[in-house]
Amino acid sequence: MEEITVNLGPRSYPILVGAGALRTVGRRLSALAPGRRTAVVSDRSVLTRYGPTVAESLRGAGFSVTEILVPEGEAAKTLAVAERCWDDCLTAGLDRTSTLLALGGGAVGDLAGFVAATYMRGIPFVQLPTTLLAQVDASIGGKAAIDHPRAKNLIGAFHQPLMVVVDPDVLSTLPDSEFRSGLAEVVKHGIILDAAYFSDLEAHVAEIISKDLPTLERIIAVSCRLKGRIVEADEREGGPRATLNYGHTVGHALEAVTSYSRWLHGEAVSLGIVAAALIAERLGVTDAETVRRQVSLLRALGLPVSFSAPAPHVIVEAISRDKKARDGKVPFVLAPRIGEFRLVFDIPADLVASVLAEMQKGAG
Amino acid sequence: MEEITVNLGPRSYPILVGAGALRTVGRRLSALAPGRRTAVVSDRSVLTRYGPTVAESLRGAGFSVTEILVPEGEAAKTLAVAERCWDDCLTAGLDRTSTLLALGGGAVGDLAGFVAATYMRGIPFVQLPTTLLAQVDASIGGKAAIDHPRAKNLIGAFHQPLMVVVDPDVLSTLPDSEFRSGLAEVVKHGIILDAAYFSDLEAHVAEIISKDLPTLERIIAVSCRLKGRIVEADEREGGPRATLNYGHTVGHALEAVTSYSRWLHGEAVSLGIVAAALIAERLGVTDAETVRRQVSLLRALGLPVSFSAPAPHVIVEAISRDKKARDGKVPFVLAPRIGEFRLVFDIPADLVASVLAEMQKGAG
Repeated sequence: MEEITVNLGPRSYPILVGAGALRTVGRRLSALAPGRRTAVVSDRSVLTRYGPTVAESLRGAGFSVTEILVPEGEAAKTLAVAERCWDDCLTAGLDRTSTLLALGGGAVGDLAGFVAATYMRGIPFVQLPTTLLAQVDASIGGKAAIDHPRAKNLIGAFHQPLMVVVDPDVLSTLPDSEFRSGLAEVVKHGIILDAAYFSDLEAHVAEIISKDLPTLERIIAVSCRLKGRIVEADEREGGPRATLNYGHTVGHALEAVTSYSRWLHGEAVSLGIVAAALIAERLGVTDAETVRRQVSLLRALGLPVSFSAPAPHVIVEAISRDKKARDGKVPFVLAPRIGEFRLVFDIPADLVASVLAEMQKGAG
Repeated sequence: MEEITVNLGPRSYPILVGAGALRTVGRRLSALAPGRRTAVVSDRSVLTRYGPTVAESLRGAGFSVTEILVPEGEAAKTLAVAERCWDDCLTAGLDRTSTLLALGGGAVGDLAGFVAATYMRGIPFVQLPTTLLAQVDASIGGKAAIDHPRAKNLIGAFHQPLMVVVDPDVLSTLPDSEFRSGLAEVVKHGIILDAAYFSDLEAHVAEIISKDLPTLERIIAVSCRLKGRIVEADEREGGPRATLNYGHTVGHALEAVTSYSRWLHGEAVSLGIVAAALIAERLGVTDAETVRRQVSLLRALGLPVSFSAPAPHVIVEAISRDKKARDGKVPFVLAPRIGEFRLVFDIPADLVASVLAEMQKGAG
């Protein structure tokens, strides 16, 4: 079992990565949680598969357990679902010392984190991510949110977990498309933060695609450590944490204009990474070889690198509404070389549109 | 203009106390706020009286201003109202650098603080309290919340303001009952935190009741400093901040069992202070003279010290559901002497019921 610490002073916490880790949740929580009551937030399919393991582990360590069922995927991230969760917490008698556990993908973690952040002004929270995307990215760093009808993740909070328990065993039951979607964030970590890691990924595409367990454990642990380091440097996303947005400016816009139905998050991020790479090349910030390596690795991992619709101007318009805008300006993260990043404001809209048009003709 | 600093490291902020302070909001915010967009949350009567002063001050300093109207009093603290505020913030184009200002009493501050804490995971926030209660207590310390149909303040957050601007001028238009209600928190500060301040209040009852402006300025500044000191010691209410709950355990229960319609908050707190004083005496924690001084000062300031209904067992039952319960136990704050406090768990329910019965025969 690999243990990574996210150092945030009084809000520091461990990330535990290892096959079978879900069976250790109760014992580990015993050492951290002040109260004996818990509630596990999850969706039906995840709860059916892994709920019994988690509940048994918690009860075995002396905790009471209430299960709170929420819809699958993004449908969980509504105010109506949050409201039902607050009701259920109150009915279950949860107080300020009780712990809420999120068992599921990024959406369940976002919702449950928001509920834990706001119930009684914040109660202890644990992340038990069951998708690759949540394991390497969403479960670390305390970002929680629900969606507004007009803007994703508009309503939220920063609420660090007591711990994150990552069990790569659960990836064996994850659909392939979901697995590949998570790989986009893994590739992102390599591009902007760690050239050696990127090379490691390039060298082990076959093992990754075949879900070789030791390879996955190693990769997940590296990504967790990289993400944790960025969160340590910038807990509230005022500076360096913005770099994790690499590929997400275009990615978010692509998701928004297709009502989150056309691409999985990681697929949209993959397209966003290609767009960011091409923008960097046009601006003379990077070279053709750096672009080629990014596009090649994404493609080798089964992620999209070109697309046919919607029209570039529609996407550019959506980018201008980005939540990270500051008094109207949208920052872009670019990668001058593999393992490096740079934040650039004021990229001309027509340059972005031109790159998107190029991708529509077939990128790379 | 008196300036008090609440020292919370990167979340430190000033409290400005002085007649005419509302006219300085724009200038002061210029030095603190990153973005140029603002929204002022207020109710109709406060907005009519003081909205123009605040808006003019903000516009004069180069800010854009959107007004967000919410219902008066506790009716503002619902999820439906919060939802409308998030909508209005989005429509007004507020981003992470924009500032939300609460102009009003404790309820408006609680609601607007919650909206500011959760909109885009937290945006800058300013408190402009217009009731005595909000000026000396609610506006300081970052506690924000809305109500759940079954529990007051159940859904909330800690979100410190950028600054608190307290203008005692506005108290001239505050209804007398609201003014007296605020005095209960002032008396509370004296009892648990500062014996000299308590004596000062005893010596100046006439000036206080007649709303003598220099006296009010002085008293408000002392209370703000005392409250700020407690918040500094315990930002997230894990320890000493619980002492501010003096009089509130019984007070909250009285409010809850009468559906918040029988007493103003400070009136219920006044009764709660009397109950806490009598409980301390029965337990041998304090003496009769200490009880007498508390009851006398509250009575002299026009606050209630006895009541006729509801029945003691109903109130005791409500106390057991207190949000501050930890695994089922409700802590009571007691005052061994004026200027001192002690946190006591496990006070027998029949002792509490007996004290409440004594108060119903006419306390003091």
